[in-house]
Amino acid sequence: MAKQYSRRNLDFMLKEVLHVEELTKYPYFQDYTLEMFDMVLDTAEDIAEKTMRPAYISSDRNQPELINGQVKVHPAVKDYFKAMGDSGMIGAMFAYEHGGQQLPAIIGAGSELIRGAAHNSFVMFTGLTSGSSHLIFSFGSDELKEKFASRMITGEWSGSMCLTEPQAGSSLSDVITTASPQSDGTFKIKGQKVFISAGDHDVTDNIIHLVLARIEGAPLGTKGISLFVVPKFRDNNDGVFNIDNDVISTGIYHKMGQKATPAMHLTFGDKDNTVGYLVGEPNKGLNYMFQMMNEARLGVGMGGTYISSAAYYASLEYAKERPQGRKLNNKNLEEPQTFIINHPDVKRMLLFQKAVVEGSLGLLLECYYWQDMITALGKGSEKAQPYQLMLDLMTTVAKTYPAEMGIRSVNEGLQVFGGYGYTEDFPLEQMARDVRIMSIYEGTTGIHSLTLLGRGITASNGKAAQLLFNKIIKTIHLASTYNDLKPYSEKLEAELLRLQSTTSHLLSIAAKGDNEVFLADANLYMEFFSIVTIAWIWLKQAIVAKNVLITQNVEGEELSFYESKIHTMKYFYHYELIKTLSLSTRLTDTELLTVGDEISITF
Amino acid sequence: MAKQYSRRNLDFMLKEVLHVEELTKYPYFQDYTLEMFDMVLDTAEDIAEKTMRPAYISSDRNQPELINGQVKVHPAVKDYFKAMGDSGMIGAMFAYEHGGQQLPAIIGAGSELIRGAAHNSFVMFTGLTSGSSHLIFSFGSDELKEKFASRMITGEWSGSMCLTEPQAGSSLSDVITTASPQSDGTFKIKGQKVFISAGDHDVTDNIIHLVLARIEGAPLGTKGISLFVVPKFRDNNDGVFNIDNDVISTGIYHKMGQKATPAMHLTFGDKDNTVGYLVGEPNKGLNYMFQMMNEARLGVGMGGTYISSAAYYASLEYAKERPQGRKLNNKNLEEPQTFIINHPDVKRMLLFQKAVVEGSLGLLLECYYWQDMITALGKGSEKAQPYQLMLDLMTTVAKTYPAEMGIRSVNEGLQVFGGYGYTEDFPLEQMARDVRIMSIYEGTTGIHSLTLLGRGITASNGKAAQLLFNKIIKTIHLASTYNDLKPYSEKLEAELLRLQSTTSHLLSIAAKGDNEVFLADANLYMEFFSIVTIAWIWLKQAIVAKNVLITQNVEGEELSFYESKIHTMKYFYHYELIKTLSLSTRLTDTELLTVGDEISITF
Repeated sequence: MAKQYSRRNLDFMLKEVLHVEELTKYPYFQDYTLEMFDMVLDTAEDIAEKTMRPAYISSDRNQPELINGQVKVHPAVKDYFKAMGDSGMIGAMFAYEHGGQQLPAIIGAGSELIRGAAHNSFVMFTGLTSGSSHLIFSFGSDELKEKFASRMITGEWSGSMCLTEPQAGSSLSDVITTASPQSDGTFKIKGQKVFISAGDHDVTDNIIHLVLARIEGAPLGTKGISLFVVPKFRDNNDGVFNIDNDVISTGIYHKMGQKATPAMHLTFGDKDNTVGYLVGEPNKGLNYMFQMMNEARLGVGMGGTYISSAAYYASLEYAKERPQGRKLNNKNLEEPQTFIINHPDVKRMLLFQKAVVEGSLGLLLECYYWQDMITALGKGSEKAQPYQLMLDLMTTVAKTYPAEMGIRSVNEGLQVFGGYGYTEDFPLEQMARDVRIMSIYEGTTGIHSLTLLGRGITASNGKAAQLLFNKIIKTIHLASTYNDLKPYSEKLEAELLRLQSTTSHLLSIAAKGDNEVFLADANLYMEFFSIVTIAWIWLKQAIVAKNVLITQNVEGEELSFYESKIHTMKYFYHYELIKTLSLSTRLTDTELLTVGDEISITF
Repeated sequence: MAKQYSRRNLDFMLKEVLHVEELTKYPYFQDYTLEMFDMVLDTAEDIAEKTMRPAYISSDRNQPELINGQVKVHPAVKDYFKAMGDSGMIGAMFAYEHGGQQLPAIIGAGSELIRGAAHNSFVMFTGLTSGSSHLIFSFGSDELKEKFASRMITGEWSGSMCLTEPQAGSSLSDVITTASPQSDGTFKIKGQKVFISAGDHDVTDNIIHLVLARIEGAPLGTKGISLFVVPKFRDNNDGVFNIDNDVISTGIYHKMGQKATPAMHLTFGDKDNTVGYLVGEPNKGLNYMFQMMNEARLGVGMGGTYISSAAYYASLEYAKERPQGRKLNNKNLEEPQTFIINHPDVKRMLLFQKAVVEGSLGLLLECYYWQDMITALGKGSEKAQPYQLMLDLMTTVAKTYPAEMGIRSVNEGLQVFGGYGYTEDFPLEQMARDVRIMSIYEGTTGIHSLTLLGRGITASNGKAAQLLFNKIIKTIHLASTYNDLKPYSEKLEAELLRLQSTTSHLLSIAAKGDNEVFLADANLYMEFFSIVTIAWIWLKQAIVAKNVLITQNVEGEELSFYESKIHTMKYFYHYELIKTLSLSTRLTDTELLTVGDEISITF
């Protein structure tokens, strides 16, 4: 089995590019050392190796089924979940006061990369449990924390997030699940939720659903949504959780991929007997839920990245071992065939994969670093504000680019295998099926593109974008001091200017008040914005690599590693960054083709 | 169930754009009328409706298995195959003397569109039988024609093509299956063939394999390959085909999609008892096989097209019926949700799908028309030469663009469905799995790109490309006479010049003799070349539509149809054609990043 990720590359990003040891200088993270971070990653490798990778294929071929109202999942999920609970990893990033270990989120992401590359579908069980318990710890009463969240981070119980409804989909304004206040302060919940990942299973005895619902009489739209804890089994305030809480598994979706994680259609309150516990204040539910949604969005970005990573190393190994044809300048048929990695087209596909995997990971780790800086400096504090603004702006990009390009990257990996890639004899066809969901999970690419252009760029009078651009400019200046990198520094500078002028053009349309025209090509703006951002990430990595090559006497594999960083950066600039030419042309093109009612006649 | 293709659009292309009735003026096609063409298409609809579409889902969920050395396929394949045999459609395009009906290939393609949109996997059984029997009729002895081919076109027996071997893949030079001459003029065949579609099944009593093998002592490479007929069951020259010909089903591939068609690993001559019959002359096998390969390549282009077509109409129907969210300028939450087709991003995805489906189909039908002109004017004749040159040049493009863009188009269709698209509740996830093979079947995109740039463009001193460009220029001139189309005519003119100058740049590299550098980005050249070609196809369609709108008093749906043609042409120019900006920048960029041995260190 090929390796699924590169520990060397992860170390490079954590230690050489982002200097995670700096985090330990802040009181919040002061109990950590680099060695302890390494141990966390070692633990992830151990869990991945023992409980995840061996089940990658079998859990796809034997998907969960709903039988007699109960879902059974692959038995290895239980082993994985237990290992995660036992190691304290489910709530490791939480504060000590919440039973956590105050582990930096960026190290948690490193752990997730390792586990997700081994089995992308299993990771969802712990990711959802972590996110939903974090929600209770952040906004719930002490009673809810003790009753539910504290039993989730140990792995005793698991969690889910219940947002989407059949009639509403992405439009959370239109959520209609109801919550009726009861005399004891609890609520009766009634409604349908769809696509609930890990919404039912036999991994834990209880499942704690975090449910968005509308308290009777609440305002229309997102301002009338409240958040509830709804366990699968409730107690009678006696700590004995054996009362069936009327959460019915109405259906299970059979999916193209991600088969190990059941996606459920759940019915709440069919017998009028579903009790929910309000989290925080009424009508603030969506605000609270954004914490989990944003965590999940970075998680989906990670999903695109770790599947792409596993696919990249699988196709790289194949390309190095598979002989076929001869080099294009070699007509001598008596010579043996060459390995396909020696064909430029195959090299191009591999470089594309590497550029996507390491570019996506770089952006995501940057975001997690910002998240840690917010925690270190105090969430809500003035000092933390720049990081918060950038994180809010970039979450949508760090979700979308790895998802969209991950899909393409895995498909190039499949292509490297030729016909074999299409068969179950190699893991690529499964990876291609698994990764396909990433542009849909946690808000489609279309929705996130509206968010980026419609809200992100203009948030706080454009301050977030300006902070990001300043960071990019800093990298441009630094790169320009290296002769070899100067041309790329100049390219990025030109692209940043192009992005800024394109943005200004679009904002001038927004100023006229027609949102539909303004946002018509938001999707292409997202692509443009992402490519420039990833070009920045690559230049950052190339600077570090160049610096090592100049100042240290590296040899052998280490030399290759650093040279390869610079080579892949160049690949990204010469093959990917140039796409902005076409994108900016379209984005400043005033011919409207997708806006207006009259267009419906054209289909 | 949504419709899977548009008969109106097919009629438009056949009758209004390509004027197929002109073909009937040539003696070869003189027995036909437009009404008879319509009847052929009606028959295809009937077969599709009755035997294909009902089995689309079930044949995917119950894939064929190899049990006790024999493959059983979905029972509906038998119904389909029989219906095709009974209607005479398997060999309908063959000459009368070969038992055919001299049906124009372009009408055969129309029939294939209809059937393939209903069930892309079933079509392969008849496509392969048609192609392999055509090979025998074209190059085999009278004995082989009578013994085998005549029983294939009736649907009594089926056929397969056996090229790929485990150690060689795309490199046919390295085929090592052997053929040993026997005293009776037959050959003993020994070797392994992989990925043999419909290589074993229970649809027909006998399967006639067309096998590439090397006669002992033959020259190395492709010049030493011969073609053999190898039946699953042979006779003793007595017409009783009950002798097991030692063709063993060694394995069946489980694939990501296209599951109804078994892909086999076949072993010939394991007991030294496989008899093969030489087709034509020794060592000319690959030349002969090119006839079938080229037919199959257009067939794969059709595959990308008809799956995209079915996906497009499914997502169009969903987008029209699915309410979600409100229009971007509407903040009134009391109003009901709007249908998602009213969101610009969804419109963009649908327009993209339509542009790909109708652009691909247009190019393919153009190729089939050229094929018919070659037949009408006499294959090999001087008059037919321009058509032959263009067909040879464009087969590789008409295979690759619909395959590559079909994959993207179906995936956009899936995206229109959001989370539902990822589930088995809708056909999109299956279509996405089915279409994924198209960029691999019959030569990967990488291989075809090498062919286009390395051989196609330079063939006959560039005459083929010049003929094509002249046709494009003719369309540019015609379009410039319509005020509304003039801007698009100018765009295409500029793009054609850009393509020509980029081509010249690449040929100047070729002149220096370094093929690896010359062909390093052949894949991107293919993309560039394809986009310009499809832009031409769209402008051709727009001219016809414009002409109708000016000269006729069309109303209602007919008016929408023609306006939509012009609108989609504009979409293609504003969103797709602009990609050439980035592509030409890369193609004239002299920084090499995928060529050279030292690059292997970079991974």
